[in-house]
Amino acid sequence: MVARGPKQPLTEEEITVDPPKEGEVRVKVIANALCHTDIYTLDGLDPEGLFPCILGHEAGCIVESVGPGVTSVVPGDHVIPCYTPQCSQTSCIFCMSPKTNLCPEIRSTQGQGVMPDGTKRFHDKDGKDIYHFMGCSTMSEYTVLAEISCAKVSKEMPLEKACLFGCGVSTGMGAVWNTCKVEPFSSVAVFGLGAVGLAVIQGAKMAGASKIIAVDINEDKFEMAKKLGATDCVNSSPDKIDKPIQKVIAGDMTPWGVDYSFDCTGNVNVMRAALECSHRGWGESCVIGVAASGHEISTRPFQLVTGRVWKGTAFGGFKSRRDVPLLVERHLNGELPIDHFITHTFEGVEKTGDAIDALHSGGCLRAVVKY
Amino acid sequence: MVARGPKQPLTEEEITVDPPKEGEVRVKVIANALCHTDIYTLDGLDPEGLFPCILGHEAGCIVESVGPGVTSVVPGDHVIPCYTPQCSQTSCIFCMSPKTNLCPEIRSTQGQGVMPDGTKRFHDKDGKDIYHFMGCSTMSEYTVLAEISCAKVSKEMPLEKACLFGCGVSTGMGAVWNTCKVEPFSSVAVFGLGAVGLAVIQGAKMAGASKIIAVDINEDKFEMAKKLGATDCVNSSPDKIDKPIQKVIAGDMTPWGVDYSFDCTGNVNVMRAALECSHRGWGESCVIGVAASGHEISTRPFQLVTGRVWKGTAFGGFKSRRDVPLLVERHLNGELPIDHFITHTFEGVEKTGDAIDALHSGGCLRAVVKY
Repeated sequence: MVARGPKQPLTEEEITVDPPKEGEVRVKVIANALCHTDIYTLDGLDPEGLFPCILGHEAGCIVESVGPGVTSVVPGDHVIPCYTPQCSQTSCIFCMSPKTNLCPEIRSTQGQGVMPDGTKRFHDKDGKDIYHFMGCSTMSEYTVLAEISCAKVSKEMPLEKACLFGCGVSTGMGAVWNTCKVEPFSSVAVFGLGAVGLAVIQGAKMAGASKIIAVDINEDKFEMAKKLGATDCVNSSPDKIDKPIQKVIAGDMTPWGVDYSFDCTGNVNVMRAALECSHRGWGESCVIGVAASGHEISTRPFQLVTGRVWKGTAFGGFKSRRDVPLLVERHLNGELPIDHFITHTFEGVEKTGDAIDALHSGGCLRAVVKY
Repeated sequence: MVARGPKQPLTEEEITVDPPKEGEVRVKVIANALCHTDIYTLDGLDPEGLFPCILGHEAGCIVESVGPGVTSVVPGDHVIPCYTPQCSQTSCIFCMSPKTNLCPEIRSTQGQGVMPDGTKRFHDKDGKDIYHFMGCSTMSEYTVLAEISCAKVSKEMPLEKACLFGCGVSTGMGAVWNTCKVEPFSSVAVFGLGAVGLAVIQGAKMAGASKIIAVDINEDKFEMAKKLGATDCVNSSPDKIDKPIQKVIAGDMTPWGVDYSFDCTGNVNVMRAALECSHRGWGESCVIGVAASGHEISTRPFQLVTGRVWKGTAFGGFKSRRDVPLLVERHLNGELPIDHFITHTFEGVEKTGDAIDALHSGGCLRAVVKY
């Protein structure tokens, strides 16, 4: 399903997917879940978006063939493509640091929509190149990944569920567990109750948070939020509250604010509210949502001087190849249910457009397309 | 020395200092060091500044008398007034938390320029009340403090040096040790080379930082910065560098930025530069300077999502009554030299105006007035 240009519907095309080159893996995509980042690019909101391209980055795949030098996977292995790679080289200070997961090994080529050698593996029927996307491009029956972007997971895990660990669910839970390290009996506020926000709630509940405040402007989201562990739900629409939401949370609902807050909206005003509702002295606020291009966050420095910490997360701080297989194991052990995130399913890659329509509808968490 | 109004010189006046009420301590001020926060209020830049008042908050004192219920100090004890009190009540979640020093017990009355019971202890010769300042008001030969604002220190410590631990020096070192917990072999950038910035450098050197980048627009500051441990000095004036300072530090001087950065200027643009020169993946930037009223910090949220952390500190995170005596002990043991911060000394409280003039001059770190 090729994205020919911003704001255009995806087109179903027969394309050529070249064999993997050195350090690359060609995979058959079994299932792909839609994420708002795909739509953001498709809608032309990412000024760095490149077209034509193949979108998609939350998938479950089976290795079809491997290029020279690939040692960690073999054909038949099940893998989840990871837009945050993990090269694990001892020369990579990021992979060697316990503090981050942001391996920069292929960052620049990935951002340019090409494979690490600078070329593309996708060509249309006229022989013209098609750009890669986020190092994944999973809205295609076959795609080519860098070996360091492949997290090998248990074959017991159905790939139409495993795909969820490729982005939103992992990101939300990891923000709680890795980036903020939420402790038992903490208080938490979550802004935005899409899949990421709900994953934050679930992660916070698992971490033992005793108060979990869920915030959205759509009250239909509250039922699932409560089911996953929210203790309080607030409609932050201006017509529902008579003061800024940060003052409702820090003041009315808690005396000093919450220990941890999470922005899962991408709205810079919400990011500010999330910071300012966090606890004087030690509150931490984590930006998870991706903001629109050019938008900036701001606050009075007094908010920081009085003890609040502003941070952010990418892929929840998980080191992808090391941690995604463990998340899958936890799911298989029954510790980490994720089925509730799948609200819509489709069959056939050509249904990707329908899945995008579903994601645009308010009731959708994850729409999974099984190829 | 009474501050009668914004932008007016201090006036030398004979005033009445009432005896201490319950939970209060009257002290004879032996020495007072000038700090920019005093001047900021005197210059009328703090919209919440109250006049007439007695400024000053960095002092060494001897207890003269104590009010009913005071148990932790007796007349003759040496104390340092602390604008961040420490009530140590088990009901105070801030005092009980290891994460913060921001005891709010007397915060609201302190902000209103009165003692915790809502009244004032200072009266001019017409009997009119004079406001307190930061819970200290040490530009007076006698002042009254809340017991919980008195850090009792060793009598071996000369009070004309001990005063420095009442604000700037502690704040800078504590930002390094408590707020950021700088590790051995870290890289550090320090913006602004006044007393606080130099204390950051000294603290970072003591913490084992291996690269310490000192930044100022006045190159005269570089000699002391180097003496205290700076490994690199940069003049950040626009006519000295051809790109934003954050790109000089993260790019030219280090591949990915510094592990820790500190703003000691109070300028919100510098605060942004400090954040943005911190290391992708794990850099932490600490706001220490007090910004002008109404000024806000801002950045792209991408800076946080790619792993930078924005935080702030007040009094360096030191729990005042517990930690200030330990700082004094460390000085007495020879571990923590501070004499180099005293660049100007004066005799007599009436010389406070001269000390203010000295602080306004570029070469001054701390001007100490011995009463």
